[in-house]
Amino acid sequence: MSEPRIPAERRRRKDPGRRDRIIDACLEVIAEHGVAGTSHRRVAAAAGVPLGSMTYHFEGMDDLLRAAFTRFADRMATRVERRTAAATSLEEVLEGFAADIDQDVFGTQDELVTAQELYTLAARRPDFRDITSDWMARTRATLTGFVDPDTAVLLDAMNEGMALHRALHTHPAGAHLVREALRRLSRER
Amino acid sequence: MSEPRIPAERRRRKDPGRRDRIIDACLEVIAEHGVAGTSHRRVAAAAGVPLGSMTYHFEGMDDLLRAAFTRFADRMATRVERRTAAATSLEEVLEGFAADIDQDVFGTQDELVTAQELYTLAARRPDFRDITSDWMARTRATLTGFVDPDTAVLLDAMNEGMALHRALHTHPAGAHLVREALRRLSRER
Repeated sequence: MSEPRIPAERRRRKDPGRRDRIIDACLEVIAEHGVAGTSHRRVAAAAGVPLGSMTYHFEGMDDLLRAAFTRFADRMATRVERRTAAATSLEEVLEGFAADIDQDVFGTQDELVTAQELYTLAARRPDFRDITSDWMARTRATLTGFVDPDTAVLLDAMNEGMALHRALHTHPAGAHLVREALRRLSRER
Repeated sequence: MSEPRIPAERRRRKDPGRRDRIIDACLEVIAEHGVAGTSHRRVAAAAGVPLGSMTYHFEGMDDLLRAAFTRFADRMATRVERRTAAATSLEEVLEGFAADIDQDVFGTQDELVTAQELYTLAARRPDFRDITSDWMARTRATLTGFVDPDTAVLLDAMNEGMALHRALHTHPAGAHLVREALRRLSRER
């Protein structure tokens, strides 16, 4: 399963997208098997790369998980930034913000599961909390100019809590309640 | 490793607490190794029971996980019920309610991790969402008489979202913000 011995620089030029593909493949494996079931072997197979190339691109499983979850969090943060970029009023920004977790982060089964896998990992391993912290910081920053920083923290937590409770309830509360909650929280400055 | 063949009824009388011990041991194993690393072998060793007795008490791993997480959720729901039982005003009930997740559910590393393991399992497997739903129902019910049902849903989600964001942030927001959030949400009826 080992690759032919090609100097690293040449190999990179030959297949410049390989590292990227491995990271995406890792996210697929996490969604299917969870962090606990994610192995170099499974990720290499999903990415269609030789097993030996894994250690070339990543120092170990922690390094790979970090790259994968950082990409996931970045994608999610970028989405809420896009959803709220055009907002010119509190009402508009909250509309984009409310749509964020419900339709984006938890919008597909894979993303719901991947988010929970990240939270579980960060719950166990404080050294992964820079990823969740950065994600929260970017999400909260989309509200800058519309609410004070404390309120942004509350709105972010409310959004997440409602999305989580809706995802894990057999009879989820209506989506209108999310808007109602954000409205109540943001009215007071 | 198999037990001597004793009729089930007699065995139960001989060691009536065995099933209970297995369930508690399963929760310990989940906290340490996660759902993915929870095996009959590990749980039997942690409970100090013969491996063969696992299949006597539980139909399979799903049955055992269900019993373990049901017990965990019941303990957490019972705690919030106790914390709020003596409340005679909205202010008092919110005080007990806010203390709930922060000090109880996420109060220890083991319980934070166990809660995330349950959420991740329920995210993957909708057939486990009756456990999370029942837990939410009992938690929300502690607010009955103080706020309307929709507000109870919001307060529960807010509490969870804030506790989760505080747990997974490297520089968590102050606990006073939880109270502030609950106050804002509950003021409007």
